[in-house]
Amino acid sequence: MIAEMNNSPANEAPTDPTIEFFFDFISPFGWFAAEQIGALANRFDRQVNWRPFLLRVTVGAIMKATPPLELPLKGPYLLHDIKRSARYYGLSFSESARFGFNSVSAARAVRWARSSSPRHAGDLALALYRAHWSSGRDISDMEIVLNVIDDIGLPRDDAARALAGPKIKDAFRKDVESAVELGVFGSPTFVVDGELFWGVDRLPMLETWLEKGGW
Amino acid sequence: MIAEMNNSPANEAPTDPTIEFFFDFISPFGWFAAEQIGALANRFDRQVNWRPFLLRVTVGAIMKATPPLELPLKGPYLLHDIKRSARYYGLSFSESARFGFNSVSAARAVRWARSSSPRHAGDLALALYRAHWSSGRDISDMEIVLNVIDDIGLPRDDAARALAGPKIKDAFRKDVESAVELGVFGSPTFVVDGELFWGVDRLPMLETWLEKGGW
Repeated sequence: MIAEMNNSPANEAPTDPTIEFFFDFISPFGWFAAEQIGALANRFDRQVNWRPFLLRVTVGAIMKATPPLELPLKGPYLLHDIKRSARYYGLSFSESARFGFNSVSAARAVRWARSSSPRHAGDLALALYRAHWSSGRDISDMEIVLNVIDDIGLPRDDAARALAGPKIKDAFRKDVESAVELGVFGSPTFVVDGELFWGVDRLPMLETWLEKGGW
Repeated sequence: MIAEMNNSPANEAPTDPTIEFFFDFISPFGWFAAEQIGALANRFDRQVNWRPFLLRVTVGAIMKATPPLELPLKGPYLLHDIKRSARYYGLSFSESARFGFNSVSAARAVRWARSSSPRHAGDLALALYRAHWSSGRDISDMEIVLNVIDDIGLPRDDAARALAGPKIKDAFRKDVESAVELGVFGSPTFVVDGELFWGVDRLPMLETWLEKGGW
């Protein structure tokens, strides 16, 4: 993860034009990032690779850390900060949105979209995020996930079949392992040219990295 | 901690012109914030109240959380991010700077300066931060703290006497309790008009809060 200084661009291997965007649907900060990452990528003529993963694997199983919202002092602050940040970003946060739900169905749906409708994976991720956190629809429920797929014009029945089978489940499980291997632990995390940036607050730093090629 | 919307300024109680700046010397992110908070306060014609506290009380004793640098995945990321952030902010980070040291002597020194040389409390805090993180001097050592006090022209002998006695120790202990009562858990934290912002990455949000009076 050491930054490679872009000292002699002509001699460097071509940079990967993708921004790897890691997120978990249970993370409202991931939503705030999802709302902004497309426009940022466009500014730099890059694609976004939408890569859901599971915080319960990284924070829960590997780091064995208490979910932050459950901590004294920090938990109440985060709840307040999430709502304040939603307003800051101009987003409407539903009072009935459920925290700490099981995000695996929604995550697998994005994994399915990446294979079957790659140009719409981001649209689906955003639609799922908004359904849950802005509209208060429970995306832990596969039926709701399939409804959202249908809402944005993707093939619901194809998705239902694929999501019931083993292939997408295996593919997503490998995705989570790959995220861990890359060092991803939190949502959102952005990876460009091997460099990780954790947190929606780091979008400005990510932009500077893209502008300057590192420092 | 609910934000008070500044809807009718003429009817509001006058806002406190102070930015409460909470930090622990063991936190490099606190250093990065310390380097910027003075200029930010000047832009808004506010004073900074430099309030050291102890992460081992908030994160350790109250939240009972593992120090982040010791966590798998997150620990290595934070170490990399601290050095990258130092470069980002144009600061020179010493390769021999010690992590996780006992910051109570340095914290009490700033508490002493707040009483005895209030206009220089910030100067001392910055000098201590730079001594440790940029020059690799160990500010867990009271001798080093007293040398830094002397370096910036404050009265070393007065400090030595005060820091050996019970008054400053009591005052600082109460400071840490006050921080906890306010809801402070991390370093840096900025509090304006009762509103908390945690993290050096939130300096832009703090500025927006000061410009708009909240949202």
